[in-house]
Amino acid sequence: MIGQDAACCAGLSAAPLDDDQAAELAKVFKALGDPVRLRLMSMIASRGEGGEVCVCELTPAFELSQPTISHHLKLLRQAGLIDCERRGTWVYYWVLPGVLDRLAAFLSAPQSAGASA
Amino acid sequence: MIGQDAACCAGLSAAPLDDDQAAELAKVFKALGDPVRLRLMSMIASRGEGGEVCVCELTPAFELSQPTISHHLKLLRQAGLIDCERRGTWVYYWVLPGVLDRLAAFLSAPQSAGASA
Repeated sequence: MIGQDAACCAGLSAAPLDDDQAAELAKVFKALGDPVRLRLMSMIASRGEGGEVCVCELTPAFELSQPTISHHLKLLRQAGLIDCERRGTWVYYWVLPGVLDRLAAFLSAPQSAGASA
Repeated sequence: MIGQDAACCAGLSAAPLDDDQAAELAKVFKALGDPVRLRLMSMIASRGEGGEVCVCELTPAFELSQPTISHHLKLLRQAGLIDCERRGTWVYYWVLPGVLDRLAAFLSAPQSAGASA
């Protein structure tokens, strides 16, 4: 998983992915492949490294029920992109450190390597 | 679209995406959010900048029919990730120049900006 294992694979352009790598990484992209989840991810990520967002700040931005928002957040969590903690009444969400940089490196890395060769 | 307009938005972590940006970008991630499409993308991208792949080389790597593979390739094309050209009997596919770098920059850019601030 991109969130857990930076050495999953050399990169999308380095060599053809095998079945297992493709299945694992497709989950991450699928999680981002929905406008509501992408907006949620952006709202959380824009707090910056170490920042977090209360679910009570996320829900009012959408015309969707709290359970629907929670379901989308769960899919982002299962993909290894975010984590959360309950404190008192509310649940707080943050982006897992380095996960977006690792995903970016997976997409672009080998092309940069090729450019310097 | 990430493939056409590098200035679509500052980045996932720069500021919350609006509805239109999220809808546009979700299409790209959704296209990558399938193991077969991710493997196809990787097979094409690993030919490097300026490289291309004949559909006749892609199909035998999968236990799927030619129309199914063509459908997945069409979704990658509609997302602005790849393009193709028919020459004689076969169709040849390539990754649109810069598209993976732009997608990577969208995911990681503002964190780098934050690191230098």
